[in-house]
Amino acid sequence: MTLRESTDRIVIIGAGHVGATAAYAMMLRGIFPEIVLIDDNHALASAEAADLSDANALARPSRIWAGTYDDAASAKVAVITAGAATHGAENRLSVAARSAQIVRDCVNALDAAGFDGILLIAANPVDVMTAIAFNSGSLPASQVLGTGTLLDSNRLRQMLAAHFNVAASAVDAVVLGEHGDSEVAIFSAVRIGGIPLQEFQTDRPILDTVAVAKAVRESAYSIVSGKGYTSFGIATAIVRICEAIIRNERAVLPISTLMHGIAGADEIAISMPCIIGANGVEQVLAPLLNADEAAAFRSSSLTIQGVVEAQVREAGLPQSNEVAWLRDEARSRTTSE
Amino acid sequence: MTLRESTDRIVIIGAGHVGATAAYAMMLRGIFPEIVLIDDNHALASAEAADLSDANALARPSRIWAGTYDDAASAKVAVITAGAATHGAENRLSVAARSAQIVRDCVNALDAAGFDGILLIAANPVDVMTAIAFNSGSLPASQVLGTGTLLDSNRLRQMLAAHFNVAASAVDAVVLGEHGDSEVAIFSAVRIGGIPLQEFQTDRPILDTVAVAKAVRESAYSIVSGKGYTSFGIATAIVRICEAIIRNERAVLPISTLMHGIAGADEIAISMPCIIGANGVEQVLAPLLNADEAAAFRSSSLTIQGVVEAQVREAGLPQSNEVAWLRDEARSRTTSE
Amino acid sequence: MTLRESTDRIVIIGAGHVGATAAYAMMLRGIFPEIVLIDDNHALASAEAADLSDANALARPSRIWAGTYDDAASAKVAVITAGAATHGAENRLSVAARSAQIVRDCVNALDAAGFDGILLIAANPVDVMTAIAFNSGSLPASQVLGTGTLLDSNRLRQMLAAHFNVAASAVDAVVLGEHGDSEVAIFSAVRIGGIPLQEFQTDRPILDTVAVAKAVRESAYSIVSGKGYTSFGIATAIVRICEAIIRNERAVLPISTLMHGIAGADEIAISMPCIIGANGVEQVLAPLLNADEAAAFRSSSLTIQGVVEAQVREAGLPQSNEVAWLRDEARSRTTSE
Amino acid sequence: MTLRESTDRIVIIGAGHVGATAAYAMMLRGIFPEIVLIDDNHALASAEAADLSDANALARPSRIWAGTYDDAASAKVAVITAGAATHGAENRLSVAARSAQIVRDCVNALDAAGFDGILLIAANPVDVMTAIAFNSGSLPASQVLGTGTLLDSNRLRQMLAAHFNVAASAVDAVVLGEHGDSEVAIFSAVRIGGIPLQEFQTDRPILDTVAVAKAVRESAYSIVSGKGYTSFGIATAIVRICEAIIRNERAVLPISTLMHGIAGADEIAISMPCIIGANGVEQVLAPLLNADEAAAFRSSSLTIQGVVEAQVREAGLPQSNEVAWLRDEARSRTTSE
Repeated sequence: MTLRESTDRIVIIGAGHVGATAAYAMMLRGIFPEIVLIDDNHALASAEAADLSDANALARPSRIWAGTYDDAASAKVAVITAGAATHGAENRLSVAARSAQIVRDCVNALDAAGFDGILLIAANPVDVMTAIAFNSGSLPASQVLGTGTLLDSNRLRQMLAAHFNVAASAVDAVVLGEHGDSEVAIFSAVRIGGIPLQEFQTDRPILDTVAVAKAVRESAYSIVSGKGYTSFGIATAIVRICEAIIRNERAVLPISTLMHGIAGADEIAISMPCIIGANGVEQVLAPLLNADEAAAFRSSSLTIQGVVEAQVREAGLPQSNEVAWLRDEARSRTTSE
Repeated sequence: MTLRESTDRIVIIGAGHVGATAAYAMMLRGIFPEIVLIDDNHALASAEAADLSDANALARPSRIWAGTYDDAASAKVAVITAGAATHGAENRLSVAARSAQIVRDCVNALDAAGFDGILLIAANPVDVMTAIAFNSGSLPASQVLGTGTLLDSNRLRQMLAAHFNVAASAVDAVVLGEHGDSEVAIFSAVRIGGIPLQEFQTDRPILDTVAVAKAVRESAYSIVSGKGYTSFGIATAIVRICEAIIRNERAVLPISTLMHGIAGADEIAISMPCIIGANGVEQVLAPLLNADEAAAFRSSSLTIQGVVEAQVREAGLPQSNEVAWLRDEARSRTTSE
Repeated sequence: MTLRESTDRIVIIGAGHVGATAAYAMMLRGIFPEIVLIDDNHALASAEAADLSDANALARPSRIWAGTYDDAASAKVAVITAGAATHGAENRLSVAARSAQIVRDCVNALDAAGFDGILLIAANPVDVMTAIAFNSGSLPASQVLGTGTLLDSNRLRQMLAAHFNVAASAVDAVVLGEHGDSEVAIFSAVRIGGIPLQEFQTDRPILDTVAVAKAVRESAYSIVSGKGYTSFGIATAIVRICEAIIRNERAVLPISTLMHGIAGADEIAISMPCIIGANGVEQVLAPLLNADEAAAFRSSSLTIQGVVEAQVREAGLPQSNEVAWLRDEARSRTTSE
Repeated sequence: MTLRESTDRIVIIGAGHVGATAAYAMMLRGIFPEIVLIDDNHALASAEAADLSDANALARPSRIWAGTYDDAASAKVAVITAGAATHGAENRLSVAARSAQIVRDCVNALDAAGFDGILLIAANPVDVMTAIAFNSGSLPASQVLGTGTLLDSNRLRQMLAAHFNVAASAVDAVVLGEHGDSEVAIFSAVRIGGIPLQEFQTDRPILDTVAVAKAVRESAYSIVSGKGYTSFGIATAIVRICEAIIRNERAVLPISTLMHGIAGADEIAISMPCIIGANGVEQVLAPLLNADEAAAFRSSSLTIQGVVEAQVREAGLPQSNEVAWLRDEARSRTTSE
C-alpha cells in the first residue's frame, strides 16, 4: 500500500524572514500538513525547518522540511518570497532586474518539476514580479497571483479601527493598484460597522484621509526603519491567501492579478478585488470608484506598466510578443467569466 | 496559596440543545477555561457536562461542570438559554408569559449570587426576554443584551453568499429589528466584495430580495420542521457574542439592546448594530436606512413594544414605572457615550 | 478551467445527534472544507445542513449540504453514524441485526458510488459493525476502522485527571478491547505527568481502579439516563480520528481495527492502539499488558467474536467463507507491516 | 462606566526575534487579547507592534502595542526574553553577568510597577536567570519560572517521532536538568504510543540514544549556525507555558523551577516536570529516573549551582544570605504542597 499522495502540500521558495514566518503561521493555523522550504542557502532552509518543527508542540502537527523543486510536483500552492535586496547606491530598477531573474529561475524550476498548482508571488516589487512569473512560466493567468495590496488593505483597516476604536473586523476598507507608492486607498467605499465613513463620522472626530493614506503607504518604511525588514504582516497576508485557496473559500481579497482592460489596467499585474478559490483567481471584481480614485488607479497602473516594460527591455526580451501573450491570456480569462 | 480567581468563566443557564451546543463550541474555540451549566434538571446538566468533558481530547481543555448560581459570582458572562416551549393549542403570549417568569427567576438568582458580568439572553421571544431581564435585575442596560438578529444576519449573509457563489465573509449584510416575523433585512446596505448589491448584480442574475428576506425569516421554521428545534446556528451566535465580550473586541454585531429614541425604537430591546466589548454594549450605532426600511424598523419596534406591554400587564407589574425606568437607563447610557 | 476536485471532503452518513454534532466540530476545527450529510430522512439532513451553515459565521467556512451517495465518489473520508435503536422489549441482538443491515446498505451504496477513501464506523455495537462494514464492502482492512475505545480512553483520562487534579493532557491512559461491557482499562500502563501510576500515588490518595473502570464503562449509560443519548464525546472522537487521517498525522489512537492473531484477537474488529494516517490504519501496535489485562482482552475479543458469528448466522451468510476472508485480509496486512 | 480591567494581558520584555515571534504565536492562538512589547529600543518595539498588528487580519484580534512597565501592573503574565549576546572573544560568564544585570533591571521595574502575575524567564542561561529573577524580586517561587527544557523535550519528541515515523503526539519523552550542555534526556521513561521504548523497538531499528541526546543538545547550535539565532521553537515553548497558565490547565511541563532538595537539586532553578496552572508552578513532580539518569541530573544541578554562585560573587552580593533566602522560599513551597 502506498502512501496517499493527496495530502495538502505547500512549497515556500525563499527561507528568509517572510518565508519562515509564513511557514510558522501555516503550522499554527493548521492549513497545510506538509510544508517544504526551498532556498539556495540549504543550510538556512534546514535550520528554519528544524526550528519550525518544534512548533508541532502546539498541536496540529505539520511535516516541514528543507526540500528541492522535486517536492513541488504534487504541491497545491507554491509561494515565492525570494528576491534581491538593495545594496548601497544601487538603483531600484537594477534590483528589480535581479529579483526578476530570481523569480524567472524559480518559475522555470517549478515548471520543470511539473508544478501545476497555484503560484503566489510575494517578492517585491510584487506587481512586476507577478507579471514576470506569469510571463516566464506555463501556468494560466488565474493560477498566478501576487500578495499585492492585501497587506496595505489590512493596514488601512487596522488604522481606521484604531482611529474609531472599533475592531478591525468592523472596518470594510481596501487599497487597490500598485503595492507601492502609487497605491490607492478607496475611501469612497469605506464603511465602519456597515455605515459609510461619511455618515459614521458625523458626530465623531473627522478622519484625515490624506494622513491615513500616507501612513499606510509608508508603513513598510517605518517598520523597516525600526526592525530592518517586515515579516509578520506580509506573512499573514500570504497565509490568508493560501487559506482561501486550499479551502476553496471564494473569499474576496485585494490581490495582484494579471489584468487587461478593466478600470484602466492594461496587460500588467495589479491589485483588484478578486474572488479567490481552489483555482486561484476565480474572478476579478470591478470596484466602484469615484472619479479621483479612478484616475489614481489608472495612474498607478501606468506606473507598474512602465516598470514592466523597462524589465522587458532590460532582459532583452522581445517586448511586443510578451505583451501580446499577456494580453491574450488576460482577455481569454476575462471572456470566460 | 489560593487559586487565582481571575480565570475566565461563563455560566450557561439552561442545558438544552442550545446551551449544551454553545458550551461545546466554546470548548472547541477555547474561549472560556471554565464553563458552568445550570439547569433545574440537574441530571440533564450533569449528563451534558460529562458528555462535553470528552471534548477536552481535542486540546485546549476547559473545566465544565453542572453547577449552581453560587458559581456565577465570579463569572464574566452569563447566558440564559432556558425558556418555555409551546404545547398543543397554547397561544404564543402565554408561552411568553411562562418564559418571562423563567427569565425573571434566573435574573433574580444571578443577582442574589452577586453576578456582575455581562448577561446575554437567548431565550425567545428574545427581544421581550431581554427587556424583561433588564427590568428584573440590577445590571445597567449596557450589560444586558440579547442574541437578537445576529443569527438572522448570518443567515442572510449565507444565502447571499450561496446565490452569488462567494464566501459568506465577502458578504456584508444585516437584519435589524425584531428577531421574528417583523424583522427587517437591510438590502440597501448589502455589499458583495465591497461592491453595493445594485452594482454587483449588473451583469449577474438579479436577486429576488423579497424571496430571500422571506427565506431568512422562515429559516427557523423550516429547520424546526426538519429536526424539531434549532441549535447550531443560535449556539454559534451566542459564542460569537461571548468572544467579542471576553476579548474586548469592540466588534460591531447586530444584537438586541435596550433602546430609547434611536431610529424609532422606544423603551424596548431591539436589534441594532452595536459595538460589543468587555462592558457589553459599548455603543449603539445608527444605521443608514432607506425610507422603506426605516418604516419597517419602526413597525418592528412597535410589534415588540406591544408584546412587552402585554407582558407587563400579564405580570400585573406597574407599567408606567417600568417603562420609565427603562427610559432613564437607556437615556443615561446614550448620553454618556 | 474546471474547479479543482482535490478539496478535502467528508461524507457523514446519518444526520442524527452524533453525525450533526461531528459536522459542527469539523466546521469549528476547520478540517474539511466540504461536508456532506446523507440521511434517509432527507428533510432532517437538510435541516441540519441549514442549521450548521450558520456556524460559518465563526470563520473558516465550510460548504455543508444534504447530499447523496454520488457526492461520496471524491470524498476522502466517510463516517457511518446511522444505526438502529432499541424499542420496548426488543433484545439487543435483533437491534444489532437491524444496525448491521443499515451498515451493509451504506457500505454497498458507497461501493456503488466508487468511494475509495477511509471508512470510519461509529454505529453501535461498533466493533461488530466495523467487521460487517469491512465484510460487506471492497475496501482493504486498513481503510475500514471503528471509533472503538477512543471515547472510553478519553473518559478514563478525564476521570484520572479529575482525581489527581491535573490536565487530561498529562494523563496517559488507554482502554482496549470491546467498546462495551467487556472493555479493558489498561491501568498497568497509566502514567500521570510521565510517572507510572504506582509511583505517582505514593503520597497521594490511592485510586480505586475498579470503581474508575466501572465509571468509564457505565459512562454512556449515565449520560443517556440524563440526556437521552450521547453526542459530544463520540462526535469529538470521530473528529479526532478524521483529523489524524486527513492530516496524515500517524497519531497513535485506540480504535477498532480488523485483527488477526495479535494478543488473542481473532478475525474480528477490536480496539488496539493503531497508527492512524492518510491510509487509515497504518499499523497496529502490540501493547504491553499484564497477565490480568491480557486475559481480560482475550475474553473481550471472544465476546465480540460471539456477536459477529451470531450476526453471520442471523444474516444467513456462509459463515466459513466470511471468516476466511477476514482472516486472509488481516493476515496479509499484518505481514506487510 | 469604566472599561473592565480584567482583560487578559501579557507583557513581553525584549522585542527581539524571540519576543516578537512569541507575540505572533499568541495572536494566532488567540490566548491574550492584550499584548505589550517593552524594549529599551522603543523604535524596535513599535516597529514589531506595527508589523504584528496586521496579523489581526487572521481573526481573533489582539491589541498589541509598544508599552512601558506601567502597562505591567494589571498583566497576568510577564515574559523576559531580553538578554546579552556574546561578542568576539568574550567569555560566557561575563555574558551571563551582563544578562543577569538586564534581568535584575527588568524584575526591579516590574516590581516597581506593581506586577503580581507569573514571571516567565526565557533569557539565557535560563536556569541561572530564573534564579536571579527570583532572587531580585518579590514574587514567591511558584510565580517565577523559566522555559527550561520544555524546548529540549519538544526536540527530543520530534526526533523520536521522525525516527519511528509516528506523530510527535504519540511520543512521551522528556529532557530534565539544565537547559544546556549538562541536560539529561530521560530515555528510561520514553514511550511510543504508550509502549516503553525498549519494547517498542523489539522488531524495529534500534535507536542510538547517545546520538539522539547529542543531536537534541546541539540542536540550538546547528540552528544558530544556519540562521544566526533561534526563534520559532523557543517562542512556541513560551506560548505553551503561557497557555497553561492563563487557562489554568494544570498541564505537566518540564520547566525551570526554584528547587530545594528534590532528586539532588539544591537552591537553584532547574528543569523538573511541573504542574503549571494559574498560580504558575502549582507543584513539582519527582520523576522516576534510573541510576545513570539520577547521577547525570545531580551533576547537571551542580553545574547550574556553580554558575549561580559565580554570579553571586561577580555581582558582589552577600552569597550566604541569597542562598539562604532561596532555600527558605523553596522549602516553604515544598512544604505547603
